[in-house]
Amino acid sequence: MAMKVDVKKAVGFQSKPQKVVFNSRDLMLYALSVGVRSPETELHFLYENDPNFSAFPTYPLVLGFKRDNVGVSVFDAGSSGESVPGIPEFDPSMALHGDQSLEIYRPLPAEGSDNFELHSTITGVYDKGKGMVIERSTLLVDPKEPQNPYSKMTMSAFIRGAGGWGGDKGPKVELNEPPKDKLPYAAVEEQTSEDQAILYRLSGDYNPLHIDPAIASMVGFKKPILHGLCTYGHAAHAILREFGGSDPNAFKSISGRFTAPTFPGDTLQTKMWKVPAGDKSMTKILFQCVAKERGVVVINAGCVVLQNPTQSLTSKL
Amino acid sequence: MAMKVDVKKAVGFQSKPQKVVFNSRDLMLYALSVGVRSPETELHFLYENDPNFSAFPTYPLVLGFKRDNVGVSVFDAGSSGESVPGIPEFDPSMALHGDQSLEIYRPLPAEGSDNFELHSTITGVYDKGKGMVIERSTLLVDPKEPQNPYSKMTMSAFIRGAGGWGGDKGPKVELNEPPKDKLPYAAVEEQTSEDQAILYRLSGDYNPLHIDPAIASMVGFKKPILHGLCTYGHAAHAILREFGGSDPNAFKSISGRFTAPTFPGDTLQTKMWKVPAGDKSMTKILFQCVAKERGVVVINAGCVVLQNPTQSLTSKL
Repeated sequence: MAMKVDVKKAVGFQSKPQKVVFNSRDLMLYALSVGVRSPETELHFLYENDPNFSAFPTYPLVLGFKRDNVGVSVFDAGSSGESVPGIPEFDPSMALHGDQSLEIYRPLPAEGSDNFELHSTITGVYDKGKGMVIERSTLLVDPKEPQNPYSKMTMSAFIRGAGGWGGDKGPKVELNEPPKDKLPYAAVEEQTSEDQAILYRLSGDYNPLHIDPAIASMVGFKKPILHGLCTYGHAAHAILREFGGSDPNAFKSISGRFTAPTFPGDTLQTKMWKVPAGDKSMTKILFQCVAKERGVVVINAGCVVLQNPTQSLTSKL
Repeated sequence: MAMKVDVKKAVGFQSKPQKVVFNSRDLMLYALSVGVRSPETELHFLYENDPNFSAFPTYPLVLGFKRDNVGVSVFDAGSSGESVPGIPEFDPSMALHGDQSLEIYRPLPAEGSDNFELHSTITGVYDKGKGMVIERSTLLVDPKEPQNPYSKMTMSAFIRGAGGWGGDKGPKVELNEPPKDKLPYAAVEEQTSEDQAILYRLSGDYNPLHIDPAIASMVGFKKPILHGLCTYGHAAHAILREFGGSDPNAFKSISGRFTAPTFPGDTLQTKMWKVPAGDKSMTKILFQCVAKERGVVVINAGCVVLQNPTQSLTSKL
């Protein structure tokens, strides 16, 4: 029996503002957990006394998962964990991360304060037959000046088994497919560790799917899978290091689509293509992330935009 | 000119009780940072929903370093950071960790509360010629029942350049030297990672000596050194896994002397000798920890006592 979904009620729904906090320890832990670990060249993401100490640019992506206490953070449709009107309850373990983007408007301070909120809006609910897609857009703001957000994040969740209710399939999305006829400019390989997910989850996403063999098996995986956003952070790190001199202020945006799970221990190969950016002060990189041993694309149609390439970039290209 | 030390004023000095807090995330991070990382056999130290989730037994050793905010935690003589009467101020970067012991009276709850305090007393101040030794004893207690502590920790700090003031050299200590004529029962090797200290410091000891190349060089090291207590945790982990079936409740005590620094990236080889324990319900292991590539003993005269060996132990010996 098909479920009953009221798209009109759901779309436009705004979650209660979610207060989020972080400190420099959270920033350093996150950086380590997405593979930032070189004491020689990356101390500015790892050491609070470094004169250039900064949040790694994709850090805002985990803020929505942070809770006051360790707990299971389900794939909430609304960012504050409340139900979305018009969408029946679903089993959060059936949710998969689909698309994800982050646009940075201004850098995050390197030490958190009590002045951060996430403002989320449901922007789309679609019936894909085998599942339902929920799209959400989230602004990270200082509530004292909400008109000047730090960043915007959009994501889509694919809820397996929750389709077939006769809804709209949604618009065809133009994906940033890498050029088929060109070899990548660069390909960076990095092996994830067997405990990669165990470390990454301490940034806030405690979903047991990423650590509990019984739960992973129940959902149909041979073992716990790595968090999609951990793979995403690895890709962002590889690209920022390769084309942006590891300068966090260069990082303007990232987008991509999760196409398969990564397993802890996989070698992540991030392939990068430099393409015309339109704006001459920007560098545009299309990317794909491959689990090398298995030959599986885990992030497709990736795109990173970097501003003001550094000297090291100029000399490289 | 020799410094002026008033041993009578210093010895017996009790620090203000230090409130300490931790949560399950702190416990999991600590476990990872001392090399507990096997998803197959050690989830009970790494996963808050594991039915046997526990603090790794040496966790109390970092509690004294935890502060509300990230900051430089110097090698305080008094555990609350106040000066010790009778001892002139000294440069904390001149302090080295000497001996360290931990005795566990009852297990730490796996989720912290506001009910933990450290009660520290200076137990000895000695003049070793080239430096001064300060000994401290610390109880971890619930202030509602201070007569029933969780554990007792003793340590000594060696302050380089602060000797020669005509004081007592201190008693000769009987060290747990490993038997010279016997090969170890077991030797476990584990390579530390280049970012081992960067991860470990997030447990609370933010001393820049362990991450900042400039500070390490100023103090005379070619590069930042690993925290002694991180090496110590690795040794405890190796012994508990080898002889105690990774059962945290088996772990009763550990002691040892730091004899040389470990560098991140070193392979730690923990050599273990089983010796008569006196009490038949106990297993006593003498150990030495060696930085293998450099052939340097980094912890000497180590001793671990385990209670009620598990089946796996019985079958092994």
